[in-house]
Amino acid sequence: MLEFFQLNYLFHQLRTVKSRGTIMDQRHTGLLYKKFVDEYEKHVKNKRNIDMTRGKPSVEQLNLSNDLSKDLDENDYLVGFNDYRNYGIVDGIIEAKQLFAPLLGASINEIMISGNSSLNQMFDMLTLFFLKGVPSVYVPWSQNASIKFLCPSPGYDRHFSICEYFDIKMIPVEMTETGPNMDEIEKLVESDDMIKGIFCVPKYSNPEGITYSDETVHRLASMKTKAADFTIFWDNAYALHHIYDDHDQLENILQVCKDHGNPDRAYIFSSTSKITFAGAGIAMFASSEKNIAEIKKHHSIKTIGPDKINQMRHVKFFKTYDNILKHMEKHSNILRPKFDLVLKMLNEKIDIKVKETVSWRKPNGGYFVSLDVMDGCAAEVIEKALNAGLVLNKAGSTFPYNNDPRDRNIRLAPSFLSLEDLAEAMDILCSCINMVCLGKISK
Amino acid sequence: MLEFFQLNYLFHQLRTVKSRGTIMDQRHTGLLYKKFVDEYEKHVKNKRNIDMTRGKPSVEQLNLSNDLSKDLDENDYLVGFNDYRNYGIVDGIIEAKQLFAPLLGASINEIMISGNSSLNQMFDMLTLFFLKGVPSVYVPWSQNASIKFLCPSPGYDRHFSICEYFDIKMIPVEMTETGPNMDEIEKLVESDDMIKGIFCVPKYSNPEGITYSDETVHRLASMKTKAADFTIFWDNAYALHHIYDDHDQLENILQVCKDHGNPDRAYIFSSTSKITFAGAGIAMFASSEKNIAEIKKHHSIKTIGPDKINQMRHVKFFKTYDNILKHMEKHSNILRPKFDLVLKMLNEKIDIKVKETVSWRKPNGGYFVSLDVMDGCAAEVIEKALNAGLVLNKAGSTFPYNNDPRDRNIRLAPSFLSLEDLAEAMDILCSCINMVCLGKISK
Repeated sequence: MLEFFQLNYLFHQLRTVKSRGTIMDQRHTGLLYKKFVDEYEKHVKNKRNIDMTRGKPSVEQLNLSNDLSKDLDENDYLVGFNDYRNYGIVDGIIEAKQLFAPLLGASINEIMISGNSSLNQMFDMLTLFFLKGVPSVYVPWSQNASIKFLCPSPGYDRHFSICEYFDIKMIPVEMTETGPNMDEIEKLVESDDMIKGIFCVPKYSNPEGITYSDETVHRLASMKTKAADFTIFWDNAYALHHIYDDHDQLENILQVCKDHGNPDRAYIFSSTSKITFAGAGIAMFASSEKNIAEIKKHHSIKTIGPDKINQMRHVKFFKTYDNILKHMEKHSNILRPKFDLVLKMLNEKIDIKVKETVSWRKPNGGYFVSLDVMDGCAAEVIEKALNAGLVLNKAGSTFPYNNDPRDRNIRLAPSFLSLEDLAEAMDILCSCINMVCLGKISK
Repeated sequence: MLEFFQLNYLFHQLRTVKSRGTIMDQRHTGLLYKKFVDEYEKHVKNKRNIDMTRGKPSVEQLNLSNDLSKDLDENDYLVGFNDYRNYGIVDGIIEAKQLFAPLLGASINEIMISGNSSLNQMFDMLTLFFLKGVPSVYVPWSQNASIKFLCPSPGYDRHFSICEYFDIKMIPVEMTETGPNMDEIEKLVESDDMIKGIFCVPKYSNPEGITYSDETVHRLASMKTKAADFTIFWDNAYALHHIYDDHDQLENILQVCKDHGNPDRAYIFSSTSKITFAGAGIAMFASSEKNIAEIKKHHSIKTIGPDKINQMRHVKFFKTYDNILKHMEKHSNILRPKFDLVLKMLNEKIDIKVKETVSWRKPNGGYFVSLDVMDGCAAEVIEKALNAGLVLNKAGSTFPYNNDPRDRNIRLAPSFLSLEDLAEAMDILCSCINMVCLGKISK
């Protein structure tokens, strides 16, 4: 069935080509297209099962933290008057705060350590804002029919899912090389008091690997917003997640917000999910002292305390912030060859004619390569890849409401796969891109 | 200052007594009262610092689970195709479900294991119900101005705090020896569709140590409720927490709800906080398969998964359900002498005259002794105890809105204190009770 379909498609393409270019061009394109279809057919016949959807650490990376689960002894439980095996300390243990404060650019009084999931913390924060309102404003968002959030796009699909869950209307904002388009943002927030926030992955952004420039951070912190309770959800998931030697630098949003007289605007989230264990790490949160005090009250209603033993495991495992940085070098040593491979294969395997319609970005860190294929081709590339056994994220998933307006973005997640699987995955992907995009070009 | 005040008070009491009883009675009561005041004064002078407020496990109890934090090896992480150090499995690992399903009386498909705090799970469940509604009804509770819950009282203060947080109007329901007054409950839920639920601690209830009778459970499961989305929050925190050999038995609410044609009514919560580590344990939740499927979707939005490594720690530590039961015997061996001491001292130290106005209950399990002093005396007893350095829960805290209508209930939490401290605490408490209640009797 598939072969018959492909053959028909091929003839159709050839007819189309014939009616446009020169005979030589037509013949060349036709043969090339046939070659790509043949390649693709081989992949379909030799169907693999490779999942490239999620930014999960690999087994090798997880092995780096196996000592996290080594014995704790009594001295690790009993600290001062506290027994960390017992209830309490809703904002996390002081040792963990001290260890991770530099990661968030926060002081000890501006940080909370709790739970295992920063996504969960973001969800909880929205729960608080919907039920009670933003600290110091305290008008519950649930009283408004249409709360809106700015969503720099492409962006992180799980931020968008949370927005959908809360019926938050998402306004996509174009991403640039320096972060989201600030001209657009400033105009929007100045005039609409229902725009209550923005979801940012400010460093090595998901999926593009872009780090917000100092100017972008300053403009976000200083801009006039019609909503008094405008909030910045600053998901600094990749704060230390460099891949190449050229490390991006991100301004300290907490400090910059203070400097511009909006000290309570930013809510910073991070976790050790991609530092130690994904799921069995610890999540952290920072904001102004005032916000932290209020949010601590909120947490005191919903729990008697976080898992402090797991916090202590992390403290004992790392001891110093410097050791965390050294640990992250080991991660990047594992990740770098994978990113190298992805970038190399995109460069080498994508046909020169197709390449004019395709673009990607070499990130200095993070977990993804963001690939823009020819407009109108992403969904088809993703579908063809699936037929050949390569699972990619659903078309449009990097955009609010799964709506990629140009149908071109594909997020590549190289971290979890072995180099062998990754090479195969990229082979399939490039083959699909060549076939689909050349088909489109020839139309 | 204090002594002067006490002396004045003594003279006032003596004058009051003189005007009522016989001369002999008066003299006796007067001398007795002076004795109690003297005793109390000694406690005030010798001010201690003993906190008897929370049902926390003691260091000895926590030590029982120290092996929980022993090394995990690679075989414990890698199970089948899963690496438990990585993202995913939002409803918890199968091994933990199998281990704890009997505790909740649930099948594998009726259980979720997540997080470290059952209180947090209850809070999350209310968040879901307020934002989206109860599964299968899906009318968000936030659309109604006055959601009401039934609160058997005395009860658990943190349930009440959560209700207050969500602006849920609490309707206190009297507790009896067989659970909450079911006549009252049936009448209420039949006529008011804003009554959306009930908070229960059905086994060794907090604070009274009462276990709901089979009849109570059947009536809760079968009663007609005007609200289609009426829910039972079944906080089975003390499912295995026996103290004496006479173990209470609790009906399986899930099964009984099914039998009565209300399969989706019950939401069961529990945790290992008082089995292994309080805060670093694991929380569990059970309901109908249909509810679980819906709630899993909700969880999938807010997190990429729970801490599965900590779940595996528990699986490896206990191995079998039978081992959990054996482990609980060790807990009860530590707790029993403490409960014995509390009951003995109440019996011996409270004056015979005062005793007529005071009552308590010997629980077969749980974490508390619930004490009812003479009407109108609890707040004063608690205040006097604080003056002498014994911190008890705030007056009224076992009732919604901190409103104990008879001002008589005091929750005693013996678990955390050493036997020595506990003896001192009970000495102070009984002294306060004798002084305050005799003072009141004599008025």
